[in-house]
Amino acid sequence: MSKADFSITPWVDVAQRLEAGTLSVLAIGACEQHGAHLPLTTDTDMAHGVAGRLADELDALLLPAIPYGDAWTAQAYPGTISISPRTLQAMLEDIGHDLLRSGVNGLVLVNGHFGNREPMLLAARTLATAGFPVCHLDYPGLARLAGEICDSRPAAPHFYHADEVETAIMLAVAPHGVDMARAEASYPDFPPSFGSEPMQLRQFNPSGVFGDPRPATAEKGEALISGILAESLKLVSAWRTRHGI
Amino acid sequence: MSKADFSITPWVDVAQRLEAGTLSVLAIGACEQHGAHLPLTTDTDMAHGVAGRLADELDALLLPAIPYGDAWTAQAYPGTISISPRTLQAMLEDIGHDLLRSGVNGLVLVNGHFGNREPMLLAARTLATAGFPVCHLDYPGLARLAGEICDSRPAAPHFYHADEVETAIMLAVAPHGVDMARAEASYPDFPPSFGSEPMQLRQFNPSGVFGDPRPATAEKGEALISGILAESLKLVSAWRTRHGI
Amino acid sequence: MSKADFSITPWVDVAQRLEAGTLSVLAIGACEQHGAHLPLTTDTDMAHGVAGRLADELDALLLPAIPYGDAWTAQAYPGTISISPRTLQAMLEDIGHDLLRSGVNGLVLVNGHFGNREPMLLAARTLATAGFPVCHLDYPGLARLAGEICDSRPAAPHFYHADEVETAIMLAVAPHGVDMARAEASYPDFPPSFGSEPMQLRQFNPSGVFGDPRPATAEKGEALISGILAESLKLVSAWRTRHGI
Amino acid sequence: MSKADFSITPWVDVAQRLEAGTLSVLAIGACEQHGAHLPLTTDTDMAHGVAGRLADELDALLLPAIPYGDAWTAQAYPGTISISPRTLQAMLEDIGHDLLRSGVNGLVLVNGHFGNREPMLLAARTLATAGFPVCHLDYPGLARLAGEICDSRPAAPHFYHADEVETAIMLAVAPHGVDMARAEASYPDFPPSFGSEPMQLRQFNPSGVFGDPRPATAEKGEALISGILAESLKLVSAWRTRHGI
Amino acid sequence: MSKADFSITPWVDVAQRLEAGTLSVLAIGACEQHGAHLPLTTDTDMAHGVAGRLADELDALLLPAIPYGDAWTAQAYPGTISISPRTLQAMLEDIGHDLLRSGVNGLVLVNGHFGNREPMLLAARTLATAGFPVCHLDYPGLARLAGEICDSRPAAPHFYHADEVETAIMLAVAPHGVDMARAEASYPDFPPSFGSEPMQLRQFNPSGVFGDPRPATAEKGEALISGILAESLKLVSAWRTRHGI
Amino acid sequence: MSKADFSITPWVDVAQRLEAGTLSVLAIGACEQHGAHLPLTTDTDMAHGVAGRLADELDALLLPAIPYGDAWTAQAYPGTISISPRTLQAMLEDIGHDLLRSGVNGLVLVNGHFGNREPMLLAARTLATAGFPVCHLDYPGLARLAGEICDSRPAAPHFYHADEVETAIMLAVAPHGVDMARAEASYPDFPPSFGSEPMQLRQFNPSGVFGDPRPATAEKGEALISGILAESLKLVSAWRTRHGI
Repeated sequence: MSKADFSITPWVDVAQRLEAGTLSVLAIGACEQHGAHLPLTTDTDMAHGVAGRLADELDALLLPAIPYGDAWTAQAYPGTISISPRTLQAMLEDIGHDLLRSGVNGLVLVNGHFGNREPMLLAARTLATAGFPVCHLDYPGLARLAGEICDSRPAAPHFYHADEVETAIMLAVAPHGVDMARAEASYPDFPPSFGSEPMQLRQFNPSGVFGDPRPATAEKGEALISGILAESLKLVSAWRTRHGI
Repeated sequence: MSKADFSITPWVDVAQRLEAGTLSVLAIGACEQHGAHLPLTTDTDMAHGVAGRLADELDALLLPAIPYGDAWTAQAYPGTISISPRTLQAMLEDIGHDLLRSGVNGLVLVNGHFGNREPMLLAARTLATAGFPVCHLDYPGLARLAGEICDSRPAAPHFYHADEVETAIMLAVAPHGVDMARAEASYPDFPPSFGSEPMQLRQFNPSGVFGDPRPATAEKGEALISGILAESLKLVSAWRTRHGI
Repeated sequence: MSKADFSITPWVDVAQRLEAGTLSVLAIGACEQHGAHLPLTTDTDMAHGVAGRLADELDALLLPAIPYGDAWTAQAYPGTISISPRTLQAMLEDIGHDLLRSGVNGLVLVNGHFGNREPMLLAARTLATAGFPVCHLDYPGLARLAGEICDSRPAAPHFYHADEVETAIMLAVAPHGVDMARAEASYPDFPPSFGSEPMQLRQFNPSGVFGDPRPATAEKGEALISGILAESLKLVSAWRTRHGI
Repeated sequence: MSKADFSITPWVDVAQRLEAGTLSVLAIGACEQHGAHLPLTTDTDMAHGVAGRLADELDALLLPAIPYGDAWTAQAYPGTISISPRTLQAMLEDIGHDLLRSGVNGLVLVNGHFGNREPMLLAARTLATAGFPVCHLDYPGLARLAGEICDSRPAAPHFYHADEVETAIMLAVAPHGVDMARAEASYPDFPPSFGSEPMQLRQFNPSGVFGDPRPATAEKGEALISGILAESLKLVSAWRTRHGI
Repeated sequence: MSKADFSITPWVDVAQRLEAGTLSVLAIGACEQHGAHLPLTTDTDMAHGVAGRLADELDALLLPAIPYGDAWTAQAYPGTISISPRTLQAMLEDIGHDLLRSGVNGLVLVNGHFGNREPMLLAARTLATAGFPVCHLDYPGLARLAGEICDSRPAAPHFYHADEVETAIMLAVAPHGVDMARAEASYPDFPPSFGSEPMQLRQFNPSGVFGDPRPATAEKGEALISGILAESLKLVSAWRTRHGI
Repeated sequence: MSKADFSITPWVDVAQRLEAGTLSVLAIGACEQHGAHLPLTTDTDMAHGVAGRLADELDALLLPAIPYGDAWTAQAYPGTISISPRTLQAMLEDIGHDLLRSGVNGLVLVNGHFGNREPMLLAARTLATAGFPVCHLDYPGLARLAGEICDSRPAAPHFYHADEVETAIMLAVAPHGVDMARAEASYPDFPPSFGSEPMQLRQFNPSGVFGDPRPATAEKGEALISGILAESLKLVSAWRTRHGI
């Protein structure tokens, strides 16, 4: 039996799995600009793709992805639609409380967007305090994997956005949304106070691309995902051991 | 040019459309039990399917659907995951404020779940007060269309859930999630105080089906959608005229 | 022993009733325009009148009516004072929590204003989840009764505002506030998008009357109230049976 | 032309007064124990009675009284129903914002319950910041008047509850709710830490009476009200001058 | 063993004290104008000074003082920085919940600023309801002590701000911030509606001094503090007895 | 003219500086365990120390430090008192709004505690959106400086807590709170899922020390502060240039 993807699973099958004990996996995405060659749903597509494979490995419930996140820094690019961190946290807490009530053993969060990190952590804290184990993942091992697998350098350390990394993963999980003909490289100059004040990225990057997406291939994407999955499973395993689930 | 579906559209194309003026369409779904033959994402699938066709007709932006709603009454069926009306309202208001900021002309909401009605109305009110026109649709004309197109009777007036109506629409928009072999009829006895107190539906309906899904076909689903679309376009047209958009 | 109306009852008598077990009844009104012939407190007067008779039948505590509700759609008529649904919900939840703490067996809500419906339902849900049974009534049976008892037709189905129905009930419960000499009929044209977008009623109805109040009499009002009471008692009885109170 | 009492006034008359410019008066009450001889609505009855006379003097709009307040300290007496200060503040702010929107010149608050003082002040601050003048009155001059008019001493300085003062005012404004046959005196011993920690009054006062209500008469009540009105009008006059209204 | 001042105490010492049972003391200050001769931290300095001595007497934990309060009425003087009462209440509740969780026996609040009174009371109520005893002190006995010890009269009854009282206490606890050479007297005329409407003090008092600070001495300050401490200890003792702590 | 430290500055001097234009500096600390040799106020002491030197360099207003932060991960160590990130964010936003209202040109935040990072960023975003420039600093350059100046290695990359770095800075800014005789080294084993789930640090570190504080000296502390100041001034300068302040 593989994962129970809620988009094809009726409730009676979930009920059956709950009796045996099961985990759940939830992707958190965003609706955010990703250059001229990737769609606005890129972060959701990537995270849900990874979440699906993880749910397969864990034989877990695959919940519908949350398609909006805190994308404040990209609001100046039309098409970006950002929700507040408070709203995202509330949504995660509501979902978690209902999973807890349903008898699910725990929740693995697969985050696809940097800005979601803190509301995710705070929701995990709330749920953990309520007795519901939550493991939150941010593409573990990605920096190492990107260095090993990709050919281009990132625009800044630990900064992967519409670049070779993200484009490769998209080619692996949602190629219909990728238009490599429009892929262009961009290595913007970051203002000196970047990171020390609220700042719209468009002020210093007209294209929205950070790096060089052109060397991306689906094979590299698969390799990145495999590496992320391997690291994720190690963390999930340690987390399960701690909670006996 | 047809709709700009955000799942395949990059921001630069949205930017171009915004210069010419455009509407946006957003489906509001739910993660809720729909009997043994329909998946937990049924309300989202249906609403996003209708929203997509409406966006086509309106040459509008098609936003990612909201896959969680207020499904409190179905919480006793495992697999149902309900968010609070306050969280849903916050999400709709956040999205609307960002659309307004981006220069979108207005927002058409396609609601696929009864419990979302009030947070939707309240969010629409907030946004309208902020100067952003919102049209909210609940499958207009559905009662008439169901009477004309479907063969089974509903379990209660204006109550369509996992029945012929919803199953038919699912066969039209997301047939991969439908398992007609598991479709069974159910006409539960509603408690006399139903509608006058908070009540979990599972208390009087073990299966989660309200009506008879068996006569459903994709053709009936298409007919229902066509009728809903026709009614929706009339309402949207009246709304646009009032706002000059 | 008839009801314990808080406006003439000291706490020691309430304490005595609580030892024997008792229900409570609370009217939710509004401060809203009702044409030139009815006062701004019409919805409160009507609901409190019905609540008082219901409390008599149930030998229950009659709480002070809440005189403000969500009257957003009538805000453009001076004299209307609307509170937000969130504030109304908070007030109902605060009151309910205190009743629960006091040892009251349950709460019957008598709603006199359409816009209060959703905050009332949400508060009932909160309180039910906390273990306090709440029955919420919206003049049950009114559509049938109006058809049987009244001579004029409503301005729209299920829409009773400053018309024969409301005027008749006011003549029965609060005749000092009614000025039949100023009663005039009004059957406005509803905009096609009415019900699909937030809309101020004054935009298409200058008088605030929806229907024809002129045939109203106190006798019709008494008949309407009797019918509402009979239907209410059936629902309350079913609700009590479910909760063993 | 005297005050426009909303319980007998239709909106069209309010509209007419607004064109000429008008103030509004709102009583804030409570649902709280007042011994065995006074009803639970005592604070509301008193405040609305005073508010009505003040509205007469000011030729102002008389709004429906708020019948619930923050009565936390009396929660241990059954029949007391307390709302949180946050809910009360929200209600006052909602009402004030709607009055401001309607074009009312200012709002005079007549507070009938000590526990409402702070939410009232905070709401006044919010509204004043929004540009809406608010004058808040707590029976000005009462300590002096009580000393001059009443025969019994208060249970503590500035503490008037179910005593001669309140009973007299009730005899003047709502005698149907007063049962002098049940009036008894009570001078409880206040714990030394009273006022320095949250404390339920019932812990040291079983009857709920603070003082001696027996010498109360309607004449004394009228004298108290006249004195309060005179002091109130002085304050309102100074407030109007400051704001040019 | 004297108090455990958190500014010089490591957690291991707190842990040891908790095993034996201990109280905690917390000062609530403000960042508010205090004339030309006292610093903006005056209320914090005073309250923390008194709190420190009280903690000494009680052999209790001395927490870091909260240096911001609700100073709305002084906002018109530059340098005043006011936080909302809601924020202050939240901070006090957060701190109290953590103390309760840690096993502290109770919390004594030393308030140094009038505007903090109500958020302090509400937080105390929340914490008491959660089972955590809180005693809140506002310089008990100050009016009597000021009359006995000081030579100047206050600008209004019970109104001590940047006057002889506050200046004397500052000379005792934080003399480095006092510049007696700039001390000037000021007895402003209070507007008649003062206390009945929100009002900025600067509108009628340009200097910010209320009274005459010039006769202040450190000796008077010590005498005031001694008196306050004596009264405080009586109240704390009564409070401890009630709670058996 | 050096900084205006609010603990010794009266409002009239702030008023004078505001006319000429000035920045403000605010330290955000925490009340958190720091091993057996450092006091619970360590993060506040350090941040306020650095903030004071920065204010000197900038000739700016030095506000009272916020002495509580989000120290959730250290709650299991008695003495730690954590406030919620929401409360901290509210406090920062309240302070910022008042500074903006006062005419201050901008705010530099000096954060002394990792857990405060996100509420600080969100508050900065709120204030920036309101038109008030905020620069937030987290000891910039610390990783490089620690490597250059300190002799011991950190317990984990970018993790400095009660170690040589923090102890050295404390010896420079608040030596009275440091007890080197109790300093001990501790290099705990981090659980594999650390960073991927909410976790109390005490579960794997009994002492609360992360690293080796013993080689710390005041000279190293001064060197660290000098380096932090130099980096901070570069960032502040870039930020000022961007905003023309």
